[in-house]
Amino acid sequence: YGKNTIKFLRHHKEGKKHFVKEVEVCTHLRLISAQEYLEGNNSLVIPTDTMKNIVLVLAKKNGIATIEQFAIDICKHFMTTFGQVAYVKTYVQEVPWQRLHQNGVPHVHSFIYVPDGIRFCEAEQCRNGPLVVFAGIKDLKLVKTTQSGFEGFYKNEHTTLPDRQDRILCGELFCKWSYGECRDFDFDCTWNKIRECILEAFSGPPDCGEYSPSYQKTVNSIQMNVLSKVSQVQVIETILNNIFYDAVDMKNLGVTNDKEVLVPVEAPYGFCACTLGRKKFIEA
Amino acid sequence: YGKNTIKFLRHHKEGKKHFVKEVEVCTHLRLISAQEYLEGNNSLVIPTDTMKNIVLVLAKKNGIATIEQFAIDICKHFMTTFGQVAYVKTYVQEVPWQRLHQNGVPHVHSFIYVPDGIRFCEAEQCRNGPLVVFAGIKDLKLVKTTQSGFEGFYKNEHTTLPDRQDRILCGELFCKWSYGECRDFDFDCTWNKIRECILEAFSGPPDCGEYSPSYQKTVNSIQMNVLSKVSQVQVIETILNNIFYDAVDMKNLGVTNDKEVLVPVEAPYGFCACTLGRKKFIEA
Amino acid sequence: YGKNTIKFLRHHKEGKKHFVKEVEVCTHLRLISAQEYLEGNNSLVIPTDTMKNIVLVLAKKNGIATIEQFAIDICKHFMTTFGQVAYVKTYVQEVPWQRLHQNGVPHVHSFIYVPDGIRFCEAEQCRNGPLVVFAGIKDLKLVKTTQSGFEGFYKNEHTTLPDRQDRILCGELFCKWSYGECRDFDFDCTWNKIRECILEAFSGPPDCGEYSPSYQKTVNSIQMNVLSKVSQVQVIETILNNIFYDAVDMKNLGVTNDKEVLVPVEAPYGFCACTLGRKKFIEA
Amino acid sequence: YGKNTIKFLRHHKEGKKHFVKEVEVCTHLRLISAQEYLEGNNSLVIPTDTMKNIVLVLAKKNGIATIEQFAIDICKHFMTTFGQVAYVKTYVQEVPWQRLHQNGVPHVHSFIYVPDGIRFCEAEQCRNGPLVVFAGIKDLKLVKTTQSGFEGFYKNEHTTLPDRQDRILCGELFCKWSYGECRDFDFDCTWNKIRECILEAFSGPPDCGEYSPSYQKTVNSIQMNVLSKVSQVQVIETILNNIFYDAVDMKNLGVTNDKEVLVPVEAPYGFCACTLGRKKFIEA
Repeated sequence: YGKNTIKFLRHHKEGKKHFVKEVEVCTHLRLISAQEYLEGNNSLVIPTDTMKNIVLVLAKKNGIATIEQFAIDICKHFMTTFGQVAYVKTYVQEVPWQRLHQNGVPHVHSFIYVPDGIRFCEAEQCRNGPLVVFAGIKDLKLVKTTQSGFEGFYKNEHTTLPDRQDRILCGELFCKWSYGECRDFDFDCTWNKIRECILEAFSGPPDCGEYSPSYQKTVNSIQMNVLSKVSQVQVIETILNNIFYDAVDMKNLGVTNDKEVLVPVEAPYGFCACTLGRKKFIEA
Repeated sequence: YGKNTIKFLRHHKEGKKHFVKEVEVCTHLRLISAQEYLEGNNSLVIPTDTMKNIVLVLAKKNGIATIEQFAIDICKHFMTTFGQVAYVKTYVQEVPWQRLHQNGVPHVHSFIYVPDGIRFCEAEQCRNGPLVVFAGIKDLKLVKTTQSGFEGFYKNEHTTLPDRQDRILCGELFCKWSYGECRDFDFDCTWNKIRECILEAFSGPPDCGEYSPSYQKTVNSIQMNVLSKVSQVQVIETILNNIFYDAVDMKNLGVTNDKEVLVPVEAPYGFCACTLGRKKFIEA
Repeated sequence: YGKNTIKFLRHHKEGKKHFVKEVEVCTHLRLISAQEYLEGNNSLVIPTDTMKNIVLVLAKKNGIATIEQFAIDICKHFMTTFGQVAYVKTYVQEVPWQRLHQNGVPHVHSFIYVPDGIRFCEAEQCRNGPLVVFAGIKDLKLVKTTQSGFEGFYKNEHTTLPDRQDRILCGELFCKWSYGECRDFDFDCTWNKIRECILEAFSGPPDCGEYSPSYQKTVNSIQMNVLSKVSQVQVIETILNNIFYDAVDMKNLGVTNDKEVLVPVEAPYGFCACTLGRKKFIEA
Repeated sequence: YGKNTIKFLRHHKEGKKHFVKEVEVCTHLRLISAQEYLEGNNSLVIPTDTMKNIVLVLAKKNGIATIEQFAIDICKHFMTTFGQVAYVKTYVQEVPWQRLHQNGVPHVHSFIYVPDGIRFCEAEQCRNGPLVVFAGIKDLKLVKTTQSGFEGFYKNEHTTLPDRQDRILCGELFCKWSYGECRDFDFDCTWNKIRECILEAFSGPPDCGEYSPSYQKTVNSIQMNVLSKVSQVQVIETILNNIFYDAVDMKNLGVTNDKEVLVPVEAPYGFCACTLGRKKFIEA
């Protein structure tokens, strides 16, 4: 049980310069007993209202240096304070406020909402187990208009899709990776580096791109790129929901459409998911 | 990988009477190889477009007697037809069309959308394993305005919630249960019976209700009621997201508000989840 | 300016029987001056926080017999209390809680959420003008699987749609009507009667339906039916957003699909809107 | 009547460099007759399916230099081609794809979705009237953490809001302006300039900001700044939905919270709307 979507903004000032960190926190607990379910005995139950209070007080006291550090703080607090907690998990998601700039000059106290991929993290711990930290990005939408095809797939009487060597590849990415057991490192810098790796593997070199023979291969390229360049990542899970763009057939309208006008097919959509670690390979 | 939200309507007529079954299907596969991820070799990949075609053709050929039977048909088709499929899972959700009535007379071909709890099901199978069937209800919103309290919980310096003996209990329910290995029985009748059990356990007797000492106990009552009255259910998972209703303090407005005007607190919201089986108890 | 989505639940008891009315209220004002816009002089501005307080206090004091009466109460309060108000409009929307039944017996305090068409109303008044009351229904989704066609329309070189005599007609309805100047009548009874008229005109007689030659004609039939049977309605505005159901072409899949499997085309969707009064006709 | 949310992507290449313009188009017509409503006579009705075809063919033939030019093309086509059209309105909204950059180098064919304010436009024309063009921005979320207050407002027994000299101002902006009768100018450049004016008026100088005594005054500042700096704008309509941030009272938790931890109140939310022209002032 737990409390979901605890939303708040943590504000602080350094001289005239203001900083904001707005987050959404979900905190889940499992207790060592089940008497509240079976007997209605609430004596060990920590109310979800108290969870909310704790999250807000920790934000006040510690600030939010990074969402990962804040998730760690919350897990540690619950595990340390409450003997009846068998397991704690905390998810933190960051509202994408970016400092406004005027002619290149950063504004001291104004921000704009720019949701080009949402940063989130998770920390979890079982009693007597290690505190494990995850981070991720979601709602990251990308498109490339060439260097993508899909050929040589399995065909039978239910196949109507033709082989294609040049199609649009459009997808919404979810990536979540594990940093393994909690250690001290620069979460901001690492997250930004991973985001760069994802964009780079998706799009290829800026002058020519890189051919993708399938969504699956693109997912694998993203994961390989992250694992090879960011040593802190232990395992990476990737889900790519793909929107198909269908070139409109204009023959009956007396026009030839050479993939210039395309309609997005939002439902149904394909997806592929894969989890890749350093030594083992688990496909899901 | 797979195809999500394949939406379609299956229509059929018996004389002048029309029947509709509109569904949303998600079909996921895992293949025996990973060469498409690692090497970009698509030779075993069944395109998600083909999956969509198969779902539509099966709907045409078999009809949709129940969504559970249809999910079973899809799983069997993939497992039987494609040797490269290691695992198949199919989710089917039903659009809640209800036949219109005029002065109690059912209409032959008109329907109204009534989303008072969405019916869904899932079937899954590993190669050489059994075909297992699940069913469920989601987005079922209920409220009871009394016979609910929360007292005697764990308190410390972060507790501000007072004990309460009379509060509003409002929640959105998700229940998913397993029928175990696929056998032949009346899926419609069973589903309706389970829905009745859920509503009954939530609300208690119509003339007086039944006191709920916590969300956890209500979840347990629902699960116990279903397991005791519906023998086909092996395991039941329940998630109750609860909206807290806060009595508005009107003292500064010169009015006494005795829980007559209450404001829903939609974020943050509490939740509790529990999975209960016939012999074992797993709390999550 | 104003306050939107003031959400609350009004609860009351008659003996053991509980009643709930949960609403969402938007209240908009226009003041006689513009000095707050032009000069930042707030001396006449009624804070939106105060608007919220007033709405909640009125709910406490008067209860919510019907949403229409409540909207009237709010408008009257603002117009009477504040000399600086030039215009007031209040929108009230009702959360569709329905009393639960067990084997036909109504429950004393439990309710289920059944959103099969949302009831709303509006009241507005200019200073020195009449208080005018509107009511309506929205998000009402209906489908009829026959007795609908579309033929004989204008054709040119950009027309690819064939004439059809038998198609599925599926739409989401919005209807808003004026009761004219505020008078005393049974708002609940009238609203229910109008809802019946809408369903009846959409679907036709239960044993055979009624042929619709276009969405436009269906909109007109709904409006004519309401105006002819409910004398309290002065003007009725109707918007019908229609979802097209496309029979899947299965020729390449070796199957003949006689409009048994159809795919909803959710974007783009057609719409038609019309406003019909008692003597004048305004098409929009 | 008309067709809404016609979604498509217009793609073109210049050498190796790719360009995309993905849009959502709504086209509405009013005909000179009402016989389709009254008599079910469709002979003058242009099917919404034909409208969709026309929009796609125009995109193919003309391309989409700017969404404003494309909306103009569509209106002109309908007015010129169909004598039965009395009025045409076209709305075009742009999907916010931005070219990806790697280390500052623009990518030839990859794009990222960055919804920091959605650009839209509208063109409309009555037969024998001028073609009028509007443009706008919506879903633009901004926050400033100081230089905002609200004092000296009207108070009575329902007022509980205290005067505040330092609060967070957070809002979602909608601005729509008229360019008047269609003339030839650089729509991209003008739109970008107006967006800059909006951000500048909201936030004030980067080193110190500018005090806002109310949402109303901020709306007015935005409008005045646009009208004074962009001569092409005739009239500007602005809606500011404001989210209130409430400093959490932590006294009972033994902590002093000096506006460091704040909770967003998403419902109810305040809004203010105003339309400002060059010579007249209309407040709504």
